[in-house]
Order: sequence, then C-alpha cells, then structure tokens
Amino acid sequence: MKLVSYRRGGQGDWRAGLFRSSFVIDIAQAIPEAPASVLALLDEWERWRERLQRLEIEADTASCAVPAEQAVLGPPVPRPRSFRDFYAFEEHVRTARGRRGLDMIPEWYHFPVFYFSNAAAFVGPEAAVKRPKAAHWLDYELEVACVIGKGGVDIPVERAEEHIAGYCILNDWSARDVQREEMKVGLGPAKGKDFATSMGPWLVTPDELEDVRIPGESGSRYDLTMIARVNGVEYSRGRWADIHYTFAEMIARASADCPLYPGDVIGSGTVGTGCILELGPERCPWLEPGDVVELEVERLGVLRNVVVE
Amino acid sequence: MKLVSYRRGGQGDWRAGLFRSSFVIDIAQAIPEAPASVLALLDEWERWRERLQRLEIEADTASCAVPAEQAVLGPPVPRPRSFRDFYAFEEHVRTARGRRGLDMIPEWYHFPVFYFSNAAAFVGPEAAVKRPKAAHWLDYELEVACVIGKGGVDIPVERAEEHIAGYCILNDWSARDVQREEMKVGLGPAKGKDFATSMGPWLVTPDELEDVRIPGESGSRYDLTMIARVNGVEYSRGRWADIHYTFAEMIARASADCPLYPGDVIGSGTVGTGCILELGPERCPWLEPGDVVELEVERLGVLRNVVVE
Repeated sequence: MKLVSYRRGGQGDWRAGLFRSSFVIDIAQAIPEAPASVLALLDEWERWRERLQRLEIEADTASCAVPAEQAVLGPPVPRPRSFRDFYAFEEHVRTARGRRGLDMIPEWYHFPVFYFSNAAAFVGPEAAVKRPKAAHWLDYELEVACVIGKGGVDIPVERAEEHIAGYCILNDWSARDVQREEMKVGLGPAKGKDFATSMGPWLVTPDELEDVRIPGESGSRYDLTMIARVNGVEYSRGRWADIHYTFAEMIARASADCPLYPGDVIGSGTVGTGCILELGPERCPWLEPGDVVELEVERLGVLRNVVVE
Repeated sequence: MKLVSYRRGGQGDWRAGLFRSSFVIDIAQAIPEAPASVLALLDEWERWRERLQRLEIEADTASCAVPAEQAVLGPPVPRPRSFRDFYAFEEHVRTARGRRGLDMIPEWYHFPVFYFSNAAAFVGPEAAVKRPKAAHWLDYELEVACVIGKGGVDIPVERAEEHIAGYCILNDWSARDVQREEMKVGLGPAKGKDFATSMGPWLVTPDELEDVRIPGESGSRYDLTMIARVNGVEYSRGRWADIHYTFAEMIARASADCPLYPGDVIGSGTVGTGCILELGPERCPWLEPGDVVELEVERLGVLRNVVVE
C-alpha cells in the first residue's frame, strides 16, 4: 500500500491516507477508531498494518475517498522524531571527494556513517523550496529513505527489515557553498542542509516491492532505477541495487545503544551521479529559482519540487 | 522562575512544574486551563509566561505542591523538535584541535557553526547514562543551552533574545573513539553523541539572570562560573562570559532561512577545559561505569548523572 499525509484542499492538519491513482482514502474516516495522522498510525504499526492492508482490498471507499485533485500531499511523515542521513552509495562518496582532490577514505568501508539533519524541515511533493539567501550553489540529492515502523534499540542486521514500515524518495536539498564553508570548521553538514528536505510522494510498504527485492546476507537491495530531472532534462541515473550498505545495516548502526522510534526517517545518501556536485556545475548548472526538480524512483513515484527565491 | 518537567513518583508523562527549593508546583493543577507539558506551554509562551510569573509570587501552593523528594525531574524539554549544538567557545576549539596536532581554523571566526544531534535522546538530572558498548573513551561536555520560547525565521541578532524562554545546563555526552572514527569519513559527529544528552535540572528564565548579564552589541553574555566534577573532583572550570559567539548570534545563524520552533534546544558547545578530550585522559581518565559526573553552573543548578554499563 501507499501511505500518504494529505490535506483536503490544502487546509488543516496532515491526515493519513491511502493513495490510489485517482483518489486518497482517508484512513480515519474509513476506520473510525484509527488515529488521524501517519505518525500516530506508525506508533501502533503492528496493530494497524494488516488492518490497512485489508482496507486496500475491501473498503467501500465512496464515503471516505478524496479526489486526487483535492488532496494536497505532504511528506509522508511530516514531523518525524529524528532524521538520519547516511552515506551509503560508494560512487557518490568517491566522486564527490574526487572533485575536491581527495582520495576515498578507508574508514568508509568499516561501517555506515550518517549525520543528523533537521527533522523539522520536511516538505512534500510539489512544495516550493526556497533557495537560502546565502546560497548560490543550490543542489538536489537523489536518495531513497526508509521509515521506521517498529521502534527498537540494538537491532541486529538480520532482524532490521522487520522494523521498516516503508520506503520513499528523498531529496536532501543542499546549499553547497554554505556547506563547504561550515564543514571547514569540522562539523556538519548542518546549515547547508537545514532549509528543506523533501520526501514523498508516498510511503510504499515493502510487500509492494517484493518482486524486485534482491536478498542478501546483510539485508535487501532493490532492482529499481533512480532518476533525477531538472526542467525535464535527465541529470542523474542510478540504481538502488548499487547501494553498498543496506538499510538493514544502517538501522543496525543507528540503533546501536540508541533507540529508534516509529516514524524515524533514515536516508540512504545520494546515489552515484545523483547531484550537481558530482556531475559538475560546468555541465549541469546549480539550481535557480524557477527550476523544476523531479526525482523518480521506479515503484516509489515522482517527487517534484520547484525552486523559488 | 525555574521551569521543570517532572514525574510524580517517577510515573506517567512528564508534567510541567515550577521548581522551588523544597517542592514543585504542578502548573496544570495550579492553572486548570494550562496545558500539562512544558513543550505545550512553550508553544503558547507569550500567553503563559507572565501568568506563570504571577503564579510564582501569588500561588496558594498547598493543593498543587509536590514535595521535592516525590518529584523526579526530567530534561526540562523532554522531546524538543530539534537540537543544534554549536561550537562557540574559542578555547575549546583551539585546545581540542591542538591535541590532534591541528591549528585553529580561520573560518571559525567567520560565523558560528553547529551540528544537529539527536533530539530524541534527552535525559534529565540524576538519570543513569549508559556507556555505549563500542565506547572506551567516554567523555562529558560542559555546556549551557538556551531553549526557544517564541519561534521565528530570519531572526536578527538584535531581536534574538526575545525568542529565548530560558537557559539550562547541558551535558553533551561523547564517545570519543566512536566519534574519531566516524569523523574520518567527513560527517558528524553523530554516532559518537546520539546515546544521551542530559539537560537540566531547571529551565531558568532570563529575568532571573538580569543582574549578572553582560550586555554587548552582539547580544548578552553572563558572568557565571561553569564547573565539572567527576566523583567529587573538579576537572573543569570556565566562565560563560568567555563565550565568543552569543546565543543571539547562534539563533540568528540557526534561523537563517530555517524556522525555529518553541522548545528547540541550542547548545553552546563546550566551555574551555570542559571535557576530558581537552584535559587529556592521562590526567583525567575517560569515564567508567560508576563514575558520577556533576556539571554546575551558577544560578542554573547542578546537573548530576551516573555512568552505568
């Protein structure tokens, strides 16, 4: 199923829905005892997951269906408790460092690393993303993310996928000039990333991806193509299957001595070729107000945003 | 006033209270229309601040006073929406880098830098802090923090202090060996810090510190001594007044193109001498289970925690 947070006519709180091609089923209208938000559903995910699966199949949706054109989609989890972004695609790390004249780091192969970013800055599909005033080198980052369903601490790799509620596309917008300056001081990135992270359009549950799953000893990868387009022109093309560290490994790392909670968002880091920093601004110029950025991942939809001043 | 989050007998949700020396006034019991949590009060801080000031003075507290020995204090804001930790004391940056054979960074003087840390990992005074299994070099960090009362975006330095609800002590516990390894990859710190941040014991409103405030063009500093003790032995001693970047400057930086919300926590970074990394483990050994760490800042109280395995 495809879980969404939506506002009818763009008004009020984000409500949990199930996305169909031409409408959204309002979950709390379809199941009166269900909570209204995605985060509240995830807080009791064991209770609601199967119930929602059945709703997908059975629901008499007439009374609780919102036509797609009236449903403004937000980030599937509008305000998670935490957002970790990893660095799990080898080609991105190698190329991004290479462009700064740096070699690959041996430690990168020892364990998956992440940084915390701003969990209060999520926006959804179609949202306008404001270019920070200090930024001249605005970039996108083409990523996939998983959202935690069942919380836990010290989660072993081999059990980690049981904790995943679903997957979605994530754009970790980056002000590269701001990031470059702050990281000289040896911390971050933080200010170079805090203005917006877009996510969506849906949270797709793992059962929908079972036929393209590539199982492995350290968890699953998916045979799905990842594409970024700017103003309709393809900039980036990569494969989720090329990820070095699986989400299972990322969850094991993140949860070591540290509880993960339902709704927590874990980003993969950028797929190879998945940002202008890698491609080079001489070939693909930094983003400008008016630019339309579309991230597409097979089965996960298209996450489209417009840059504004 | 001194705002606290407490649990009566350690049970139930964290409730907002006002701390007196021998008891806690339960705010929602004293003012029936007031919300029960500190975060909910901060969400309407303009409405509640003066009302709480009057309560401090007037309240007939008999019916809503919880004896101190029954009130287990938590972090003043148990689950903020975001936690930024800055790097605002020059001596700490200089000494910590010096110990790694690195010079001071010119960019540090250009703007205050921060990193995001885990806003879901706050613990309160007297909480046991578990040493991560992978950590052999466990450290404390002696900091002050401010908590945002009034949210905002693009807050100018000269208006920034209007957005501060109060100040408290903060211990940014650090697994230095974990941190050292992850930061070789060029991100973070994150995993070296995510297991616990302690905060408290009270959130002290700025009016209580007015007589020790040192005003300046770029905001206020405070003439208050900061001390850390391990098992009763003084390790660290510094002065809040020595901070290079004021909280006003940090708020201006953090809020540039990025909304701050009520309850958001902003850490100062470590005061000079304020951690074992600076002092050297040959002189002050890394923390071990059983060690008692007390951070004391004049007027802000004592934040005491015990390390456990």
